[in-house]
Amino acid sequence: MKKATITAILGAVALSLASNASAQVRPEDQIKYRQAAYSFAAWNMGKIKANLDGTFDAAQVKAAATAIAAVAGSGMGALYGPGSEKSIGAQKTFAKPELFQNGAEVGKLAGDFATTAAALAKAAESGDAAAVKTAYGDVGKTCKACHDQFRARH
Amino acid sequence: MKKATITAILGAVALSLASNASAQVRPEDQIKYRQAAYSFAAWNMGKIKANLDGTFDAAQVKAAATAIAAVAGSGMGALYGPGSEKSIGAQKTFAKPELFQNGAEVGKLAGDFATTAAALAKAAESGDAAAVKTAYGDVGKTCKACHDQFRARH
Repeated sequence: MKKATITAILGAVALSLASNASAQVRPEDQIKYRQAAYSFAAWNMGKIKANLDGTFDAAQVKAAATAIAAVAGSGMGALYGPGSEKSIGAQKTFAKPELFQNGAEVGKLAGDFATTAAALAKAAESGDAAAVKTAYGDVGKTCKACHDQFRARH
Repeated sequence: MKKATITAILGAVALSLASNASAQVRPEDQIKYRQAAYSFAAWNMGKIKANLDGTFDAAQVKAAATAIAAVAGSGMGALYGPGSEKSIGAQKTFAKPELFQNGAEVGKLAGDFATTAAALAKAAESGDAAAVKTAYGDVGKTCKACHDQFRARH
């Protein structure tokens, strides 16, 4: 199989992974949890960047990369269920309507995130700062690719 | 060493792990990120509970347990820095002032969380639902222990 195909399948798997336990999560909580997951990932991305820009603490980078990979592998597709397309009261969403209409493209982007996050975790495991730098950049590109297409607030 | 001592040391390590990259995170972002981390963990705890109560999907449980362990191991002590003791504008905190005055006790609780979350990840790796149920209960107790002492909102 071509890499793009495998990536798309991985994305579909990631999106479906949490399906059996998603029914009881209210749409407003889906919005809350998906934002929390990205926020937790962003904090960990920030830590890796600080390590690349300053003193490289391999243990901290490893923990941060593990956290990002855990987010990417947590089956977040379940947090984009029916009713979660629009803000609900104080629970605002910045997801564009297009996100909910382009499952295949979103699946591909989710797969890219999972693939690059796993590669970052592997690079962090090695403790090689140069490898981490490259892998970190690759993850950042997948974040940006999805934000550019499907996030209303940049 | 006694288990309690080892746990306390693990907690201290967990708390200090992110120290070198914490300086640049603003206090309001520390509040935001720590709430995001717990929220992400809570979603994953909920998934495990749904699996224990319903159909046990070993892959989903494994991913969820990995996510919880990643939160517990992410060095969240860095998110309780100076200036983050009180709500900042719209960024509310529900941490009691006592949390910031009892480093040793908080370190012990953080260590308990890290230890039980690692055990849950190990149980999930095995795919044994009974082992997951026990380990899940142990993690839940560490959540509650900290909430009871240091969280103003229950």
